[in-house]
Amino acid sequence: MQNQGIVILGAGKVAQQLYLQFLRSGIEVSTIWARNLSKATIALGTAPVCNQLSELPTDAHLYIICVSDGAIAEVAAQLPIEIRMKRLVVHTSGATPMSVLAQSCKHFGVFYPLQTFSASSKPDWTQIPICVHANSDDLLQRLQHLASRIAKHIYVINDEQRLALHVAAVFVNNFSNYLFHIGATICETEGVSFDILKPLIAETIEKLKYQLPKSAQTGPAIRNDVVTIARHEDFLSKYPTDFQAAYQLLTNGIKSMKE
Amino acid sequence: MQNQGIVILGAGKVAQQLYLQFLRSGIEVSTIWARNLSKATIALGTAPVCNQLSELPTDAHLYIICVSDGAIAEVAAQLPIEIRMKRLVVHTSGATPMSVLAQSCKHFGVFYPLQTFSASSKPDWTQIPICVHANSDDLLQRLQHLASRIAKHIYVINDEQRLALHVAAVFVNNFSNYLFHIGATICETEGVSFDILKPLIAETIEKLKYQLPKSAQTGPAIRNDVVTIARHEDFLSKYPTDFQAAYQLLTNGIKSMKE
Repeated sequence: MQNQGIVILGAGKVAQQLYLQFLRSGIEVSTIWARNLSKATIALGTAPVCNQLSELPTDAHLYIICVSDGAIAEVAAQLPIEIRMKRLVVHTSGATPMSVLAQSCKHFGVFYPLQTFSASSKPDWTQIPICVHANSDDLLQRLQHLASRIAKHIYVINDEQRLALHVAAVFVNNFSNYLFHIGATICETEGVSFDILKPLIAETIEKLKYQLPKSAQTGPAIRNDVVTIARHEDFLSKYPTDFQAAYQLLTNGIKSMKE
Repeated sequence: MQNQGIVILGAGKVAQQLYLQFLRSGIEVSTIWARNLSKATIALGTAPVCNQLSELPTDAHLYIICVSDGAIAEVAAQLPIEIRMKRLVVHTSGATPMSVLAQSCKHFGVFYPLQTFSASSKPDWTQIPICVHANSDDLLQRLQHLASRIAKHIYVINDEQRLALHVAAVFVNNFSNYLFHIGATICETEGVSFDILKPLIAETIEKLKYQLPKSAQTGPAIRNDVVTIARHEDFLSKYPTDFQAAYQLLTNGIKSMKE
């Protein structure tokens, strides 16, 4: 019988957000496994928690491994044999091939919510794409069905495509945020409010609704406005070399968009 | 008498968007000057256009120079003497000091709408900050008053602060857009829709509403997740060296945020 709901392995940001969304969607989470029991108990509230993989219920219908990428294979290998032979085991990593589960598990897949989660954010799951993949069509359908109960946009994405999305996500999310950090640092240093730039940031995103980034590109680099670029480089000379190097490299990258 | 409205010098994107917003706000634009008359006539519709600086009306209450940064001083110097001695002349450049007008004009300032304008976009002027500055308090008040008739957020910003905002704007707008271009290129190459990433981009911006970019930073670089970084670099090896160089440099920049 596979009636004991879902087991979540991990207590980090993805585990927490998935757990909360399963709860909201009326999907039972039977157990959460966490190495650090006290941390998990605080973070996850009333969910049943255990810190021994050997003590996990073996009859859940899905085991979701939400640990750091480097620990996925290790956690999978330590699951009880009954889980590894009979149950569906998935990971939630964008950058990890599905095959890391193949050595220890018979039925496996990926359940990757493509979003940036933080402790304080309240993600809108109607807007979060979930990328699924599995080693059989039957399992894939089960994952699609589950995903459709907690989200609206479900994509079947293979390993290579998922890695591509993960790399692209680093560019559009992590690296953009770093550029916002540079902008905020410059504003703070010069005594102007970063808020002045927020409408500009909003418009940068707004444009993506109706055109490709390539055709939305503006600024001194795409115009090859050497006077302005020189003024900016001069201005940045008092800032960390990281900022100067980013300015030069990204300016040159934009210049080569024209080619 | 200063009753002939505003004269706009230039017919580019900023000139066009300012012109349209003055029209919407019931502010008379008496003349538009453009080197290329036919281009200006097409772009600006029914506005009176001339291509001779010597033929400009000399009794407008404001002359707004919206030409490329490198041409501002030259255009100002060629204005009729009556304008240069009696009228208020401003430029709209973020990166150009107000002082480029000092050599030829007696009353001068800056009227800088901090936004990215493109031909197809319809900017929301209630959201556009306008940064003003002038060489006397009286003129500054006139610019503030005018700005408040077309926008809601008006800031008095000096040359150094305006240059800082301009540099920061390049980071948060131009460079972010370039990163979106890289993301879109990767998606296209791998046959997945760039749309999958748009909720992530939206969330990246959403977070700025309640936290600084520094505390919103996530991803493999800030975690120093060397396995994922190596996977990403390996994935990018088939892409342009610009993409690889940007990945490495921005990853290193994020790593140094922790220090």
